[in-house]
Formats: sequence, structure tokens, C-alpha cells
Amino acid sequence: MLPGFLTRAVELLLGRDGRNRPLHLRAAGGATVVLVVVMLLGSWAVIVAEQGAARANLTSYPKALWWSIETATTVGYGDFYPVTFWGRVVGAVVMVVGITTYGMVTAALATWFVGREQKRHRLAHHAHELCEETARALHERFDRLERMLTRGGGPD
Amino acid sequence: MLPGFLTRAVELLLGRDGRNRPLHLRAAGGATVVLVVVMLLGSWAVIVAEQGAARANLTSYPKALWWSIETATTVGYGDFYPVTFWGRVVGAVVMVVGITTYGMVTAALATWFVGREQKRHRLAHHAHELCEETARALHERFDRLERMLTRGGGPD
Amino acid sequence: MLPGFLTRAVELLLGRDGRNRPLHLRAAGGATVVLVVVMLLGSWAVIVAEQGAARANLTSYPKALWWSIETATTVGYGDFYPVTFWGRVVGAVVMVVGITTYGMVTAALATWFVGREQKRHRLAHHAHELCEETARALHERFDRLERMLTRGGGPD
Amino acid sequence: MLPGFLTRAVELLLGRDGRNRPLHLRAAGGATVVLVVVMLLGSWAVIVAEQGAARANLTSYPKALWWSIETATTVGYGDFYPVTFWGRVVGAVVMVVGITTYGMVTAALATWFVGREQKRHRLAHHAHELCEETARALHERFDRLERMLTRGGGPD
Repeated sequence: MLPGFLTRAVELLLGRDGRNRPLHLRAAGGATVVLVVVMLLGSWAVIVAEQGAARANLTSYPKALWWSIETATTVGYGDFYPVTFWGRVVGAVVMVVGITTYGMVTAALATWFVGREQKRHRLAHHAHELCEETARALHERFDRLERMLTRGGGPD
Repeated sequence: MLPGFLTRAVELLLGRDGRNRPLHLRAAGGATVVLVVVMLLGSWAVIVAEQGAARANLTSYPKALWWSIETATTVGYGDFYPVTFWGRVVGAVVMVVGITTYGMVTAALATWFVGREQKRHRLAHHAHELCEETARALHERFDRLERMLTRGGGPD
Repeated sequence: MLPGFLTRAVELLLGRDGRNRPLHLRAAGGATVVLVVVMLLGSWAVIVAEQGAARANLTSYPKALWWSIETATTVGYGDFYPVTFWGRVVGAVVMVVGITTYGMVTAALATWFVGREQKRHRLAHHAHELCEETARALHERFDRLERMLTRGGGPD
Repeated sequence: MLPGFLTRAVELLLGRDGRNRPLHLRAAGGATVVLVVVMLLGSWAVIVAEQGAARANLTSYPKALWWSIETATTVGYGDFYPVTFWGRVVGAVVMVVGITTYGMVTAALATWFVGREQKRHRLAHHAHELCEETARALHERFDRLERMLTRGGGPD
């Protein structure tokens, strides 16, 4: 059931034709998928790591899933936290992947906004239009000149 | 009173003619409004969810509002936190909406700054001016050529 | 001593001729100054607000300053936190100003990086050079044409 | 062993010919290296600072390293925190360096995404191509005009 959910999430976020999508959408979508996988696997790994530790408070999967959410969002209430070496390694991975994902989403949003603003002011479009208009006008002047020359140099 | 406040906030942030505003302002303003609504409703929802739980510490609306502020900003002192399944679902929503809002505000600020820098260097403006100037000069050369031809090919 | 330090910080960050600096530098610098002022004043305000509260843990200025640092950076260990209404209002202000400042600094860094990349690829510069070169070449062609016409239509 | 690891990390992130790399990659890579150094040195410094304090909980290097990770990522569970003045100064440095690094990485990602989007739409490239094409067409018109004039003004 879990792999099915993941496959669907990957398809939703990246699409079947994901290779044609712009880099920032693929990066933000891919990072979100990686974050969800890291949180789901990390919750399981942290329980395995904490098993048998004296003051372990991460003792069941639902608790560990809640811990991975508050860790990845960097809230960190302190109601649950790893106390063993490998548990803390898992925690560090969840933290770093979480922060990197928010950075990617923020950067992707900025890229989307900047692109929309540039379209809105139609900077490139304007430049194109102006250039093509100028070129057309100059060609018309050449046509007129050539007509003048063929008339002037014709059977006069 | 609350809906009145919200209506005013929406008007302030999005304006009556919000559809003409650039995307990044609408996105950042809209996300801020959604965050405020999620925090106000989440504070109420978390109390309902936590009611009757043995070790519940979120027991009144003012406490829950303070909890939603420190959760949305990802500070998370740990003085208040949900202990039930649905309370934690509400908490996860507040966290994710909070982080996404800061991402949107940061991205909107970046778009604003980048736009101001491009205006400052007047990149597009310069290119336009230069192009129009060049076109005008070339048209003047054509006028001069045509005057030369009509004189040369006239009653000589 | 404190106002002297603040005046110097404002001068260092904004400069005497701050009005000529680009918006993103002024915004990031100004937000940093506002954050430092909010943290220094907030540390004092939170002690005043917490005075007399039964379970208050923010009882001295050094403690409150450390609390304002871990609050503004959204670390929030939970070793210190406000327990009164006005103390929490001060806390909320410190959190929001802190987050907004990091958003402004991140956006200013992005603007700086984007500007440097565009200079590096010399997009605008290239376009200018190409346009001027084309215009010069076309003017030379006109000069040659006119010389041909004046020779051809001269005393032949 | 530690300096060797650091030298390798610097080489990996900045490269031997780091001066030719774009600013945003150097800034994000450099900030990451500085963050790792600050975390490794800060873990040692905070133990020295906390030594002998009555309620100190940062008592060994592994604990302090875990504390520096959760501090730099702004998670802050509250299982470990400094209680002395100099320990808190070290903590503040780790926090500020951590946040600045994430800001730099986010800004570098945004710059990378924006650059890729601009390449994708080939704004600058298009403008160049169009300009060169226009210039070539106008030169051909001049060639044709000159041939007409030399024929017309030749042995007629």
C-alpha cells in the first residue's frame, strides 16, 4: 500500500513526462518526495535505533511519525527526541533534508514569481516586437528605393 | 467580529482590484491570510481534539492561540504541544502552512528586489531607447538617399 | 552607550548616503537593525510583563536576552518562555520580526547573486554591443551608396 | 585527521579553481564549510564554557555535537542547552551562522533556477539571433541596391 501511495505521489508531483518540466519544478517536487520518504523511513529507523535505550521516548511508529514531522519542520517541541547515536544520525538526516526541501520550495516559488513578473512587463516580447517592426519598416524603404531606381534607370 | 476583521484583512492585503496585482503580491498576501485563518481555526480545533486526553496541556483558547503562534513560526518551546492523533494532525497543518507562507513571503521579497534592481539598471529601457534611436537614424539616411535620387533623376 | 552603539550600527549598515543604495541592501540592513532593537527592547519588555507571574522563568535581563536570541532564530529550546498574555505578545513580535528579517536577508542574497550572474553573462552588454555594431555597419553602407550616387550623377 | 577532512571538504565544495566559479556557488559552498567548522569548534567550545556550571547538561563532545546540529538547524528540542554566559555566546554564533547558511543555500538555489529558466526561454539568445538575422537581410538589400546602381550607372 505504501509503495502504491508513493508511486502515485511521484506521478502527481513529477508527471509522466517530467523531463520536459522546468528544473525548479522538478527539484522542488523531487525534494518533497524525498522528504516524505525520509520521514516515513526515518520514523521506522529511529525506533529500531532507540530500541533498548534506557531513557528512549520514541517507542512506537505513530509517535516517531509525529517526531519526524516536528523535526523536519524544525519546530522541535522536545516532547520526543532521540537519545542514541544512530537515532541522532537519523534525526540529523531528517533535519537537513527538511531544511533543504524548504529552501528548494522557496527558491522554486521565487523563480515562478520572477518569471511571471518578466512576462507581465513583456520585456523580451516588447524587444522582439520592436525589432521586427523596425526591420519591416527598413525593408519597405528599400523596396521604395529600388522602385525609384528601376523607374529612373528604366526606358526613360 | 472575527469575520469583519478577516474581510478587512483580505481587503487590505489583496485590495478590491486584486486581480490586477502581480502574482507574487497576491500569493504572499493570500498565504498570510490563509495562515491567520489556519492559526485561528487550528487553535479551536486543537482544543476540541485534545479534550479528554489524559496528559493534554492545550486546555484553553488563549493557550492554544499562543501554541499556534510558536508552532507556525517553528519556534516550538515545548511548553504546549498536542498529545492526541487529531491534535497532531492540526499541528502538522499549522506547521506546513506556516513554513509555506514564509517561503512565499521570502520569494515575493526576492521578486520585488530583483524587479527594482532591473529597473534601477534600466536594462530593458536602455535597449528600447537604443533600438528606436538607431531606427530613426536609418530612416533619416533613407530620406536623404531618396532626395538625392529624385534630384539626380529629375529634369537634369 | 546603547544609543551610541545603535547609531554606529545604523551608519555601518545603511551608510550616510543610504538613499543611493539599492533597495534590497537597505531593506536587509534596515530589518537587521529593527531586529536588534526589537530583541534589546523585547528582552526588557518581557521581564516587565512577566514580573509577579507565578511560574515566570524570565526573571533577569541576561536570561531574557538569551531567550530573545533563541526566539528570534526560532530555535526555542524551551528553557525560557513567557507565561503571561503581554509576555507572549512580546514573544510573538520577536518571532515575526526575526522570521521576516531572515526572509529579507535571503531575498537580498538572491538578488545579489542573480545580479552577479547576469553581469557575468553580460546579457545586456552583449545586446548593446551587437546593436551598436549593426547600426555602424548600416551607416557605412549608406555612406558608400551616397558616394556611388554622387559620382554616378555628377559631371560624367 | 580533522584538518585533512576539512581540506578535502573545501576542495570538494570550492574546487581547486574556485575563483572561476560563479559567486552564488562559492558563497553557498563557503558558508556550508564555515557552518561545519563552527559546529565542530562550537561543540568543543561549549563544553569548555559549561565546565563546572551547576546545572550544565552539555558535558561530553558527542552530546555537544548533537546539540550543535539541532541548534544550527533551529530545531532546538530542549534536551540540551547552554546555561553559562559564554556557552550562550557560542550557541548564538551557531544559530546565526546556521540561519545565514540556509539563507545562502536558498538564494543560490533560486539563482540557479532563475538562470536555467532564462536559458530555457533563450531570451538573450533569441534577441541575438533576431538582431543578426535582421542585420544580414539589410546588408543583402544594400548589395542588391549597389548592383542596380553600378549596372544603371555603367556602360549604358
